[in-house]
Formats: sequence, structure tokens, C-alpha cells
Amino acid sequence: MMDFLSQCRGIVGDAYVLETPSDMAPFLTDQRGRFTGKALAVLRPGSVDQVAALVRACAAHRVAMVPQGGNTGLVLGSVPDISGAQVLLSLARLNSVRQVDAVNRTMTVDAGCILQHIQEAAAAEGCLFPLSLAAEGSCTIGGNLATNAGGTAVLRYGNTRELCLGLEVVMPQGEVWSGLRGLRKDNTGYDLRDLFIGAEGTLGIITGAVLKLYPQPKASITALAALPSPAHALQLLVLMQDYCGASLTGFELMSRYCLELVAEQFPSLPKPFAAPHPQYVLLELSSSESEQHAVGLLERTIGAALARDVIQDAVVASSVAQSAGLWQLREHIPLAQAKAGKNIKHDISLPVSRIADFVSATGPLLDAAFPGCQLVCFGHLGDGNLHYNVAPPPGISNEDFLLQQDKVNRVVYDSVESFGGSISAEHGIGALKRDELARYKSPVELNMMRAIKAALDPLGIMNPGKIL
Amino acid sequence: MMDFLSQCRGIVGDAYVLETPSDMAPFLTDQRGRFTGKALAVLRPGSVDQVAALVRACAAHRVAMVPQGGNTGLVLGSVPDISGAQVLLSLARLNSVRQVDAVNRTMTVDAGCILQHIQEAAAAEGCLFPLSLAAEGSCTIGGNLATNAGGTAVLRYGNTRELCLGLEVVMPQGEVWSGLRGLRKDNTGYDLRDLFIGAEGTLGIITGAVLKLYPQPKASITALAALPSPAHALQLLVLMQDYCGASLTGFELMSRYCLELVAEQFPSLPKPFAAPHPQYVLLELSSSESEQHAVGLLERTIGAALARDVIQDAVVASSVAQSAGLWQLREHIPLAQAKAGKNIKHDISLPVSRIADFVSATGPLLDAAFPGCQLVCFGHLGDGNLHYNVAPPPGISNEDFLLQQDKVNRVVYDSVESFGGSISAEHGIGALKRDELARYKSPVELNMMRAIKAALDPLGIMNPGKIL
Repeated sequence: MMDFLSQCRGIVGDAYVLETPSDMAPFLTDQRGRFTGKALAVLRPGSVDQVAALVRACAAHRVAMVPQGGNTGLVLGSVPDISGAQVLLSLARLNSVRQVDAVNRTMTVDAGCILQHIQEAAAAEGCLFPLSLAAEGSCTIGGNLATNAGGTAVLRYGNTRELCLGLEVVMPQGEVWSGLRGLRKDNTGYDLRDLFIGAEGTLGIITGAVLKLYPQPKASITALAALPSPAHALQLLVLMQDYCGASLTGFELMSRYCLELVAEQFPSLPKPFAAPHPQYVLLELSSSESEQHAVGLLERTIGAALARDVIQDAVVASSVAQSAGLWQLREHIPLAQAKAGKNIKHDISLPVSRIADFVSATGPLLDAAFPGCQLVCFGHLGDGNLHYNVAPPPGISNEDFLLQQDKVNRVVYDSVESFGGSISAEHGIGALKRDELARYKSPVELNMMRAIKAALDPLGIMNPGKIL
Repeated sequence: MMDFLSQCRGIVGDAYVLETPSDMAPFLTDQRGRFTGKALAVLRPGSVDQVAALVRACAAHRVAMVPQGGNTGLVLGSVPDISGAQVLLSLARLNSVRQVDAVNRTMTVDAGCILQHIQEAAAAEGCLFPLSLAAEGSCTIGGNLATNAGGTAVLRYGNTRELCLGLEVVMPQGEVWSGLRGLRKDNTGYDLRDLFIGAEGTLGIITGAVLKLYPQPKASITALAALPSPAHALQLLVLMQDYCGASLTGFELMSRYCLELVAEQFPSLPKPFAAPHPQYVLLELSSSESEQHAVGLLERTIGAALARDVIQDAVVASSVAQSAGLWQLREHIPLAQAKAGKNIKHDISLPVSRIADFVSATGPLLDAAFPGCQLVCFGHLGDGNLHYNVAPPPGISNEDFLLQQDKVNRVVYDSVESFGGSISAEHGIGALKRDELARYKSPVELNMMRAIKAALDPLGIMNPGKIL
């Protein structure tokens, strides 16, 4: 292995091969601090050619690689195992915006670009890159692509997959696939791009991408609606899509308990309603025309929803600051949860039409198994994506409750499966949900995935132990 | 082989194994009448189980299969070769709409459903299935998926790929992959769905799909703009996207020569302008609000385009009939071409920003090589997709000109490649463009495709000779 490491130093320079525990430490623990792996070394290439040369060296020495961007993943996909035999390959130094083409509405970027910088570079050209999520200040686009990240704008603009037109990938044997095409239509053979998107670095290392841009909306307006039940939230969604079409750019469900938790942990945040309601929906409308257009459309839609008793009440933000305040309520739910104590998290999705039934069915199952447990249920209702988190019953310690994690997961995931849902909506599988994937996917599908993995990575050195 | 065929008869019944030349004939010639293959038999299964049983029989006897839907493909992808050793497997009897879920905005269909029936079934539930193309009255959704069909609504709604959430596929060894998920977010392993979409039946046989539906727009309005050049058409596109966002649902470029050809061959169609213009753009705006909203937005946008000298003139359709008349001009271009004689067709795409430069550069190259040849250039400009067809110079017969096809292709495709474009935007590769694919794709990309083909279809019996 000394031979291998000296080869790596020859490729990237001594300064970019980290080997001491303290140098490596920041790369080896996951975002939530639940797991710390070991690495033979942390490699920090500065160019695509260097990535390719490192991968060739790894292939020659049969050294397994773990690609890492901003290390903000939630499923232990970007940290090495505890063997100390894997190298961590950080893409963070590949952080240039290579080109913005405002007429083609595309942008070509290095994988290590931070999402927020990409959003800013697009805005500087009068365009919108719509991907938006909590970690945007530190996650990288390579990681977003490798996990097919979701976020709050999926309802209108799709997942990261739908925002990518082309990729550059270093393959497991070190060849570079230059697929950086900026085309809206290209039916020339198999869709390799979408195979790498969401593969969590197990089929190759994404080093660059061509992203789709959109025109900047002229105005966005936010409102908070209060409703009696998730079933009413579904009615509201259908009504709003019919009235507003693509102008509906956000639709986030939050239960009463979620906002009570936020109010308790962050008392300085706004409290939009005098009395509590069972459910809330945070709405966002955007207009390509004007603020006046967005306001008029929102008022008509909310009027119709009130007239039909779909909603009980609504608060419309009358300023950018008020709008930000409403979004803060939504964004503070995970923070409030963390302050209140540990809980068992599930990032699930369902057919939108089944959400109310899922919520009605699953709560009682959990309550029967864990009497008094608290549900923190919120999420991107327009995409069928719930963050369905379970907090301990009063009197049970966090530690004791976490011992029940497998049992809690079983109740939730079995119910998800029975409603035709997914056990990982937007976070991916990583090492964390690998066993769950093996449990819930059909053998036909698992075998296809294994066949593809073996075909593209016959040595099994690309992020092994993740997904499969 | 008698053994094999009697096994097939046992699976689907005698009536659905066609063996006489006259019974098989309708399945063996391609849509444009350029090629007629031979088949051992035409198999017409009536259920997914029957498809799977037939595929197992084929695998056991090493018989190659050619899946076929409506047989409207343009690249010889759905007809067998001339060996007479392949079976044609028609999906046309699998033609049920299994389910429409208006709240989830999805529809589950058999692969053999005709596109127009799907559009109608969606409309009956107040929803829109936006895929729309010339063959919609006879093409099937299975074929649309297998070729990732494009059409006129891609600008707003994407290709068939973007309109599909889940698939059911019979694999090359006869297992059924049940991936009929109706989820907007599902990050559980490799994206197998998108691997089958666009694979032209070479990796498995699509038997069912979950499709995305959209709310029906309340109104659509059409206009025809006249412009000096393709560069102005790009300016108009940017301006309209900025003003109209997702309300812009159609943007079709047509050259003066295209409309002259239509006027000559179909003199009863409308002639919107008194004097000719170098280029035209057919625009469509749709509103989720009202006709009044669509009209106001279109008038503002056209006013701005006139004020900035982006367009020279415009005609706005003031009725549904007028709107249909404008679309007829566009739809009659291929028909007018066919009546006027043969020509050499290219279905190409480019980065939108490069289209004007491509057109300026390629015309002179063709004129230098084939003096006096006529360009019939039209297409989905908003997607960067041109139908770039070359008709013979005056005095040269169709037959003589077609002998030059390879040379014409070389000029066009080399130019497409130099501008970062694609040699097949929406029609696919099939058998027709297989050699061109081998010429223009990188060895890295071809090798990946071959590795995936070998991994999923190790016997090589799934539509061999297509794509690779």
C-alpha cells in the first residue's frame, strides 16, 4: 500500500493526500454524527484528469474508493467503512462553474461546486437553478446528483434527475465518459446519465454536469393555510393545481404538533394563527408575469378553497419578510425536533392520493406498538413525500426508544409498502438502508441492479457496501 | 422450431400465432415502406403472463424477438431482419387502461394502448396526458416509451421519459419486473425505469406503465410570427420564456420554403401573410386560468417582440378553428414533402443557443457538395430539435439523389457533431442509424452500452441488431 500511496502523491501532490487521523477526521464522520469510518487516506484531486489517474491507481491496486462531496448525506453514503482499507476521494476541489449558456438555459459545472454557488451563478445571468434544500450552503452538486436530491421545488421542477442534461463520469477502471451534452432531446442509445444519477457513487464518480436552468419568476408569494385533516390537504392540492397549474411552486404539509414544537423551541418565530388547527399547508405561488398576477391568483384560489370548506383559515404573506417568516416555520421543524430530543426518522413517499389513508392507518399501528409515541409528520405533500418521524412516548428515554428502531421501522415501512410507497423518497439508501432495500425490493429488481453493478464495476471497488 | 411454435400456440392459442405470409405481412414492413423483414411467426399475446411465457419459450429455444407496438417507428426498430429466424411479438392486444388516479395525477396502462386513447381517457377524468405527435392515432404507449418519443409538447412537459413514473417489463429470460410505482420521489437504488425507456426493446419488453397526468389547461391560444432569421427566432424564444414561463407550450420553427411547399401542395390551407418572410414561428400559449389570461399574455408578449424588432409581423388565432388552421400548416410540412418527392431526412438536435449558427454553417456546406439542393428545415425549436431534410437539386431525380444519402448524412451529421448536437433527437436508432451511432459515440459510451446489454440479455435475443 505504500507503493499505492506514493503513486497517489505523484498524481495529486503530497499536500492532497491526507493520512494523519486529524487531517482525515473531518471527512470520516457523517453529517448527523452517527457513524465514524476509517480510511487508508483521503485523496483530494484538483482536476478530472487527476480523478481518473487516482481511479486507475485504485483499480490497479484493488483499493476501494468512497467518493464524497459536501458530506451532507443522511444515509451514510459518503463515509468509508471501518476497515481502514478504503480511500476517501473528495471532489471538493473541483469547484468551478465551467460555463453558463443563458440562451440554451444550461450551466456546466464541476461536481464539487456548492449548490448555493450554482444558484447564485445562475441568478447572476438572470436564470433560476431551482434545486433547493436545507444543506444548500454546503452540499455539492455531485452529491445532489449521486443521491438524486429532492427538496422543496420538486413539485414544479422535479428532482435533481430532471434538472440534469449531461454528465461527465470517471468510470471504475479510470476511463472518462464525456457525456456533457446540453440537449433537450437526444435518443441515441441507452440512458446512461440516469443510471449514474442516484447510484450514490457505486457505478462511477461524477466529475461534471450540464444543468438545466429556468427563467427567474418575477414574483413569489407565500401563504399558510389551516385545515382539519390531511384529506383536506389533498383536496386543496388538487384545487390549487387546477387553478394555478405550474404557478404552484410549493406545497408543504405540517401537523399541529410540528408547529407546536417549533413554537416551544423557537419562541421568537411568528405564530400565524391565534388558535391551533389540526394541519397546516405552506403554499408558494410564483408568477412569470408580476407580483400583482401572483397575488390575484392566490386570492382567487384561497377564496375558492374557503368557499368549499377545504380550508378553515389562511394567512397570506404581504411582504418578502413575512414570506420568509412562514418558510422559517417549515425549515425549523427539523431543528426543533433535534433540540427536543432524538427521534426515529423516515423519509418516505406514497402515491399522493394515498397519503391521508396512510396517515390514518399508520398512526394507530404505531400507537398500539408504542403507546404514547409522538408523530412529527411534515413534508413535501405535493410530491407525496413525508418526513414521518417518531419521537419517544413521555417517560421513555431517547436511548431506550432508539433500541426499538428496527421495530418502529418495521411498522412504518410495512405500512408504506402496503400503500405502494417508497422507503426512501429523497435521501437514498447508502449503508444505512441497505438491509431495508434488500427486504423490500423484489429479487428481480435486486438481480438487475447487481448485474449492472457487476457489468460496470467488475472489481467491486466503487463505493462498496452502499445500496447493494 | 416446430416444437417451439407448438409451445407458442399452447401459450396464446392457435389464432394468435400467425405463420402465413399474408397474415404476417402487415407486421413486417416499416411505416415508411422502406424495408420488409421476414419472421418465423408473429405472436400476439393477450396478457402479461402470456408475454412472459412466450419470452421463456424464446429463451429456451434461443429464438430472437422483435417487440412491436403500432409499428409507426421511423428507424426500423420494430421490424425483424431478413433472416426469417426472429419472431415478431406484437403488444397490440394488451390495450387496457388499468387505472386512472386523478388525485395522484397518474394513469396505469397496458403497453399496447394507443396514444390517442390514453389522451382521451385522461381527458375524461379532467386531466391532460401531454404527449402528442403525428402518429398518435395509431402508435402505442409501449412504442413511445421504448423510443422515448418527443413531439410538440416537450418544451413544456418533457419527452416520454419525463411523463413516466413506473414500468412493468418482461425481462429477456422471462421474469416480470413489476415496477409500476406511481411515486414522484423514490430514491431506492438504480434507475432501471429510465434504462428501459429509450432502449427500443433491446433490454426487455415493456408491458405496462404508470404515466404522469397534468391538470387540463383552461385555454390555449396560437399565433404565427414572422421573422427575418433563425437568430431572431432564438431571441423570441428567450423573450417568450421570460414573459410566459410554463405558459409557453409550443414553439415551432418553419422556414419560408416549408410554407411555400405546403401552399403549393395543399392550396386550400390558410395563407396567413400576404407577403413571404424568411422564417416563421408557430407559438402556443396555454393558461391554467382563463382564455382572457392567455390572450392578454400573448398580446403583451407579441407587443414586446414587435417593439424590439424581434419579429416582423404576427397573426393571432381568434378562434379554435383558426388555431387549428395554423397548426395544420405545421403538420402538413411532412405531407407536402412526401407529395413533392423523396428527400433525405435528419432528426437532429442541438444546444438551443447554437441553432442559428448551425443553420448558417451547414446550408453552405450542403450547397457546396450538392449545388442547388433544397433544405426543408423545421421543427421543435424550443427543444433544439430540427427536422433538417434535404431535397434534390432541380434536374436531379429522386433516385439519383438518394444514392448520395451517405454523403449527405456525412455533411449534416459531421456538422451536428461539431456543434455538440445529436444525430437522433426523437426518433431513436433502430437498425437504420446503427452504423451512425457506432461512428459518432465514444468507445467508452459504446462499451458501457454493450456491457449493460450483455448483463441484462446475455443470450442476445432481445431485438438484436437494433441500436448496437
